Amino acid sequence: MSPWEKIADGCTAPAGFRAAAVHAGIKQDPAALDLALIYSGAEETAAAGVFTLNRAAAAPVQLSREHLRSSGGHAQAVLVNSGNANACTGKAGIKCARDAAKSAAGALSIRPERVLVASTGLIGAPLKTMLITLQAPALVKGLSAGGFAPAARAIMTTDTFPKFFALKTVIAGNPVHLMGMAKGAGMIHPRMATMLAFILTDAAVKPRDLQRMLKTAVDASFNRITVDGDTSTNDTVFALANGTSGIAVRRGTSPGAHFLAGLTQLCQALAHMIIQDGEGAKKFVTIEVRGARSEADADCIARSIANSLLVKTAIAGSDPNWGRIVCAAGYSGVRFDPGKIDIGVNGLLLCRNGLDTGFDPATAKAELDKPRVNVRIDLHHGRASAQIWTCDLTRDYITINASYRT
Amino acid sequence: MSPWEKIADGCTAPAGFRAAAVHAGIKQDPAALDLALIYSGAEETAAAGVFTLNRAAAAPVQLSREHLRSSGGHAQAVLVNSGNANACTGKAGIKCARDAAKSAAGALSIRPERVLVASTGLIGAPLKTMLITLQAPALVKGLSAGGFAPAARAIMTTDTFPKFFALKTVIAGNPVHLMGMAKGAGMIHPRMATMLAFILTDAAVKPRDLQRMLKTAVDASFNRITVDGDTSTNDTVFALANGTSGIAVRRGTSPGAHFLAGLTQLCQALAHMIIQDGEGAKKFVTIEVRGARSEADADCIARSIANSLLVKTAIAGSDPNWGRIVCAAGYSGVRFDPGKIDIGVNGLLLCRNGLDTGFDPATAKAELDKPRVNVRIDLHHGRASAQIWTCDLTRDYITINASYRT
Repeated sequence: MSPWEKIADGCTAPAGFRAAAVHAGIKQDPAALDLALIYSGAEETAAAGVFTLNRAAAAPVQLSREHLRSSGGHAQAVLVNSGNANACTGKAGIKCARDAAKSAAGALSIRPERVLVASTGLIGAPLKTMLITLQAPALVKGLSAGGFAPAARAIMTTDTFPKFFALKTVIAGNPVHLMGMAKGAGMIHPRMATMLAFILTDAAVKPRDLQRMLKTAVDASFNRITVDGDTSTNDTVFALANGTSGIAVRRGTSPGAHFLAGLTQLCQALAHMIIQDGEGAKKFVTIEVRGARSEADADCIARSIANSLLVKTAIAGSDPNWGRIVCAAGYSGVRFDPGKIDIGVNGLLLCRNGLDTGFDPATAKAELDKPRVNVRIDLHHGRASAQIWTCDLTRDYITINASYRT
Repeated sequence: MSPWEKIADGCTAPAGFRAAAVHAGIKQDPAALDLALIYSGAEETAAAGVFTLNRAAAAPVQLSREHLRSSGGHAQAVLVNSGNANACTGKAGIKCARDAAKSAAGALSIRPERVLVASTGLIGAPLKTMLITLQAPALVKGLSAGGFAPAARAIMTTDTFPKFFALKTVIAGNPVHLMGMAKGAGMIHPRMATMLAFILTDAAVKPRDLQRMLKTAVDASFNRITVDGDTSTNDTVFALANGTSGIAVRRGTSPGAHFLAGLTQLCQALAHMIIQDGEGAKKFVTIEVRGARSEADADCIARSIANSLLVKTAIAGSDPNWGRIVCAAGYSGVRFDPGKIDIGVNGLLLCRNGLDTGFDPATAKAELDKPRVNVRIDLHHGRASAQIWTCDLTRDYITINASYRT
């Protein structure tokens, strides 16, 4: 097995997958793509999904969960729209998602339960089903290996760039590929961001194994990022495995572990792109907590710091106000001794044993001015650690979100 | 007993209390007051305190807790500074707070444990003890009944106006008074805001009763507001009861209930002023959740909505994006049926049974443009309800907090 290598053209899908995108009129801008279809020709394509934990899960989330159950973890198509989340739309929303899936299934001559659906955009507004169903034939006709770049554009909302990433490896002499696309931008929070991600591989993976490995990879990537602490109604990650590489990977075997490593690497790359494109974000921030009694403690403190508005605005202003970091740790609910804590930024120690180190403010500001800010907190209580990725909070976040609807 | 009545001059303290404020050089602006002393001449003045739950509690919080314990709930003075929180300052910080209390006690000829202390301002910077101790004689000399207006100014940080409020009633033919001052602005969150409040009364209340009633009043006021979800290291509410009215109130009696009602009314008035002065806030927002299975459920959903950046920015932009409210309720962790939820703003129903009501956007915008926005959520699951007070989140919040330190 060779290490997983990044493929320069991240938008190239494994053999057997095709995609298409159109402007269906869901977004008002007539130049904007807003509907995409991803298709796998292999009937036995395994499928897995990880969804938002939000109790007000959107209609496409509810329908896709149902389809994954009734198909026993198989799907050949993903139909996704932007511009409208089809969330808080009641029974009409469910019918809309169902009719949309049926129209794609009809045009592809597959069973409707083999179509997964996802939506992103405004919550609470009815989604006009016909805008989607009318486009089903054109989407199917337009399917091509080159369709993933437009598809990655079609799922964008307030994203400023399309997000895709691809990896390859060799297992037992055969090349195996992984490719993914994502959208993010706002409402990004642990327990799934307002984000969609679709991951395609030519490995042959059983549905149950794919589901478990996807969950593990998501927990180590998309569930470790936060932009604003809001968990969306529509978060969805799908993985499709069509087996065209001829290489079977099973959970618990060496190739299985290798595949999981690649899947995690891919999800982390996409998760980092989401943070880089956080609404109004200027800096990529890593919060690393070490020396905790347990991983759960480290995780809890890291999330508390990553979600603190006062920490995020201080980073936006390159203000080495480390007291706000201690403060956010202090209200996390985790027991620790504030008199033992060390805090560093990009290797520069601001606080040792809970006290200011007398650091040079200009040097600290220079570190905080960098596009990547690594905040390391050492509690000196144990050996457990955790990382969370986030961004700074700028005036632009407010501007973007004060009038999203209008 | 007569109803509690607002006193026009909110800065008039009950008889027997005096105050003074000076510029001690803790704030850089030489015109800014930054140190205040409140004094009660009555030796048997009862005292109570409610403090931050932040694990990194500041030195003055630690010392005041100790003093309340060792004095059995008695205090005659409150010494408070702004400009420096004396938090994350280790043993030196504790010594500083202790020396500051001693200097005031010496100048007042009382025992140090009868002095409570509070600080607000920058975290993590050493506080120069001498700046405070040098001023103790001047503060004591300057004590007067007219000193509360300057004292309310001296505790301000990013506050834009001083906050005070006073009430009077008649119990058993005798007038009884309540007066309070507060500071707030940022880091305002349930479980005590980054806020200080000092409440004075001429009622005679036993320390244990005062402590319990203060806790009850704080839970119904300061613990129901949120600006940014950050819980400070320094939150403190003190109540002093000097008994000069000659009226004794005991918990569990009719006068006790009457006193608690006034105390709660006073705390709510001050809490509302803190929200009105929330950093960058333009609107006073009430989040009211009804029809919940339990008060805890209603409270949890109300707090989740009140802390959602997406909800707060939508309100800032007068955007009737009710889907974000359902979304925030959905990730609160409380079980409810999104298909039953109603959401209204200032009486205008935006969502009924989880669906858009087809409201007029211009009318909704006009309601959201008002300085007071009342968001009412009905879950239709039960009879319990809860209210949380918050503000909108504007670009100015970011501006204020991006460079607080520098």
